[in-house]
Amino acid sequence: MNLLMQTSAWPALRSKAIQLSRVHLRNFFEQDPERFARFSLRYGDWLLDYSKQRVDGETMTLLMELVQALDLPRGIRALAAGDQINFTERRAALHMALRAREGVHADVVRDCLGALEHWVTLIRNRELLGATGQTITHIINLGVGGSDLGPRIATEALAPQCNGPVVKFVANLDPAALNLALRDCKPAHTAFVVSSKSFSTQETLTNAQAAKKWLADALGSAGVGRHLFAVTNRPAAAQEFGVPAERCLFLPEWVGGRYSVWSSISLPLACAIGMQAFGEMLAGARDMDEHFTSAPMSTNLPVMLGLTDFWNASGMGLETLAVLPYSHLLRDLPAYLQQLEMESNGKRCTSTGELSRAPTAPVVWGGSGIVGQHAYHQQLYQGTRMMPMHFIVPRQAADERTRLLQLNALAQSAALMRGKTRDEAMDELRRNGLPEPEAQRLAPHVACPGNQPSTTLLMPDLTPRTLGQLLALYEHKVFVQGWLLGINSFDQYGVEYGKQMARSLAAGRLPADTDSSTRGLFDALEITPDLRR
Amino acid sequence: MNLLMQTSAWPALRSKAIQLSRVHLRNFFEQDPERFARFSLRYGDWLLDYSKQRVDGETMTLLMELVQALDLPRGIRALAAGDQINFTERRAALHMALRAREGVHADVVRDCLGALEHWVTLIRNRELLGATGQTITHIINLGVGGSDLGPRIATEALAPQCNGPVVKFVANLDPAALNLALRDCKPAHTAFVVSSKSFSTQETLTNAQAAKKWLADALGSAGVGRHLFAVTNRPAAAQEFGVPAERCLFLPEWVGGRYSVWSSISLPLACAIGMQAFGEMLAGARDMDEHFTSAPMSTNLPVMLGLTDFWNASGMGLETLAVLPYSHLLRDLPAYLQQLEMESNGKRCTSTGELSRAPTAPVVWGGSGIVGQHAYHQQLYQGTRMMPMHFIVPRQAADERTRLLQLNALAQSAALMRGKTRDEAMDELRRNGLPEPEAQRLAPHVACPGNQPSTTLLMPDLTPRTLGQLLALYEHKVFVQGWLLGINSFDQYGVEYGKQMARSLAAGRLPADTDSSTRGLFDALEITPDLRR
Repeated sequence: MNLLMQTSAWPALRSKAIQLSRVHLRNFFEQDPERFARFSLRYGDWLLDYSKQRVDGETMTLLMELVQALDLPRGIRALAAGDQINFTERRAALHMALRAREGVHADVVRDCLGALEHWVTLIRNRELLGATGQTITHIINLGVGGSDLGPRIATEALAPQCNGPVVKFVANLDPAALNLALRDCKPAHTAFVVSSKSFSTQETLTNAQAAKKWLADALGSAGVGRHLFAVTNRPAAAQEFGVPAERCLFLPEWVGGRYSVWSSISLPLACAIGMQAFGEMLAGARDMDEHFTSAPMSTNLPVMLGLTDFWNASGMGLETLAVLPYSHLLRDLPAYLQQLEMESNGKRCTSTGELSRAPTAPVVWGGSGIVGQHAYHQQLYQGTRMMPMHFIVPRQAADERTRLLQLNALAQSAALMRGKTRDEAMDELRRNGLPEPEAQRLAPHVACPGNQPSTTLLMPDLTPRTLGQLLALYEHKVFVQGWLLGINSFDQYGVEYGKQMARSLAAGRLPADTDSSTRGLFDALEITPDLRR
Repeated sequence: MNLLMQTSAWPALRSKAIQLSRVHLRNFFEQDPERFARFSLRYGDWLLDYSKQRVDGETMTLLMELVQALDLPRGIRALAAGDQINFTERRAALHMALRAREGVHADVVRDCLGALEHWVTLIRNRELLGATGQTITHIINLGVGGSDLGPRIATEALAPQCNGPVVKFVANLDPAALNLALRDCKPAHTAFVVSSKSFSTQETLTNAQAAKKWLADALGSAGVGRHLFAVTNRPAAAQEFGVPAERCLFLPEWVGGRYSVWSSISLPLACAIGMQAFGEMLAGARDMDEHFTSAPMSTNLPVMLGLTDFWNASGMGLETLAVLPYSHLLRDLPAYLQQLEMESNGKRCTSTGELSRAPTAPVVWGGSGIVGQHAYHQQLYQGTRMMPMHFIVPRQAADERTRLLQLNALAQSAALMRGKTRDEAMDELRRNGLPEPEAQRLAPHVACPGNQPSTTLLMPDLTPRTLGQLLALYEHKVFVQGWLLGINSFDQYGVEYGKQMARSLAAGRLPADTDSSTRGLFDALEITPDLRR
């Protein structure tokens, strides 16, 4: 039996989940005026408020028992020490080493940062010249998954600080993606970063081929190399592709794709914001690492965020997690966290080889705070499903508009927790002067059940440093959940199967037992043998 | 008791859901070689394949019984005829009238399109001059929800056809949003479209104030009017705000926000693609309307898509729906459908005033097809939750890259349906030369349960016309689900509550019974009275 199931806390938590399902969140607050003080926590200018989650004192005690029984502190130490916590692939997961000043692989990290700095400095000083001797002013990143999301959302989040070359990101092999990105680029001024750990990612290599052709058509094939960079663990393959050796930035084997924003993968980001700001981002992540590895469990931000999310997704079995950043600059954070959480913990096999009996990762979704109020929030208010949320609210400099943004975040979490009873709806409709029968008719349509659980995370104003803290916070909270579940957050065998199937179809070899649907769609698309290469 | 519960098909469907939960999708295909032919349907170049959904012949018979028992054909006629199907607000839902050539409100629609054409032509001919006599080359849309999503995703989807002024969309009141949009705009060349049916939407009006100031600072306040448009149901309010009367485009009361892409709300879109292309988009929607209102239920695309989604979300109670367009141009379609489905059917009160006992709308999420394979697909393969999907695959012109895109869509749906058993995983690991104990150890981590239900929608190549068909298809499928559930898909009382709460907090009037969490967060943000205006 896997370890979680062997704890005495787990069955108690399952009973607790049933017991609490009968209590409305509003009652929790009525019964305990100190609820906010008891179920919130500060770290510097960060404030984590989980008092609007469906927990009581006993829940938190049981979760802490789980932490002890499964020895989470040992897990944190193992992660930090570079032990092989990726137990299926027998590898360490060393994203913390990427931002440490010393320790495991400090020499490799220093070398990688040195190479990064060299190229970033050249580019930002406009000293990097292309094949025709003209300055490189546009950088296009070709990468997908971890080679896209991290640097992309960080560049977007730090847009006000971007003062380097124009940086664009192309992930999709749909020709429309590259074509749109190239619209206002000139070959003589454009460089591509081909970002792939294995240097065999189909989407990335396909786009890289198209990019090479675009360059060669304008500059001649001899000049192409001066417009290419690679970030990879296989520099030989990149050189064979045509990237000059000195332009192949090294990505160590122990850097996982979804944990790679701290590495050379962020070449385009560093070009945009500069090495100093990128260093600040690393320092921010380091702040969070220090906190995570040293703070007691009960005042540890990633631990407490992870525990309450574990309670929702695994303890109560809730299916989803909405991430709602009340900041335009963080609008694509949900997409980043989708990968981080769903690819890390969307697993079912535990360390003992048995299937998890607890539900693992939820579906992470969401969008730009306040904007979503005019779209999917209707369902949060009156739908039939319980939909846990994270409200992420930066403490922006006081300005009437940012205040409105913050007030809206608070108003949403308050209203979604509280709800509006049918009686309250009746009172309101009467006050608005509706005749009694009309008020009676409409009240059930106006009433909202409330009881939607949410966590609010106040964070310092968005800077490279606090962005680093934020991303590291989520990395660690995902680790906490994976550790409690006993799964390996650092492999991704599932996605391999889809790649195998695609290779099989692309080769035109429909396996004999192919289902009639796939066969029918194949025919409907009139995929002919010569296009099946 | 609400009508759905009174049907004899409903309890039978609930039993069916339990029965089928024991069957693996792979078995369905093994048992019936004709499964694809039985559970797919064509309409022109459209192909709807629901054979990878968890249905059998009896399920479809029962769903058809439901259609008859609840008289869906009557619902479709009522929608088309302009009956007051928005039964709470006693209004018609006339998005079909917006693209009809005749019928209800044909005169109003003609007038609205005429005014739209007038301004679009001026702008596209570069004849519209700003306060300093210079051409308007940049249009910035200020709107949120339906006043943003429809025109925005359509402009994005039709990017290759955009040949008018530069068009941008600002929805968030976070100053960062407008500031970023204004970066490469010059006041003398820029016009704003203030898009709000009520002309009282907080986000939009706040941004409009900031836009006016930006214009006035550069052009003087007298010139501002020549850089403003409004799309609204309350032209008087818009004029009071400073928009000249002739620049207030009228939005009829019976146009719902999330169904407004067919109206003057699409002024920026029409500027970008031209009136002819916009007319094509309306014609595409009209194609789908004609199909929806005339085709028999069993060969009716929106009906069958709606039924199978109803089965997932309401019959089997599955919580989520992933929308996966395998087209870069449709990458933000999931956000549009989030609003369309979750705001329409994220309800719980039925037409009889009773709460729905069936779960209503699912959480709609998703992202750009193929790109997501490198992020959240891991969870689709090996997570613990059943996650229904829509694969949307345009038949793009044959090119090696678009073929790869299509093949990947097919490969994903095939692999996610089929799965890989532990024995298959073992065989594969042995073939790869792993020693037996290592293969034994890894097999459970490599195995995938499969059994993930999906619908594949092949569509014609993306054009204004087929985009119109696509959006109307989803409008109608959402209507089908709402009708079966007996809820009103056309109101949105839930979101009003959040707005009330925000107004209350913004006024600094924390209600006496405010929960300690909201109070604590209010204090932590140091919101002082003078900023609470």
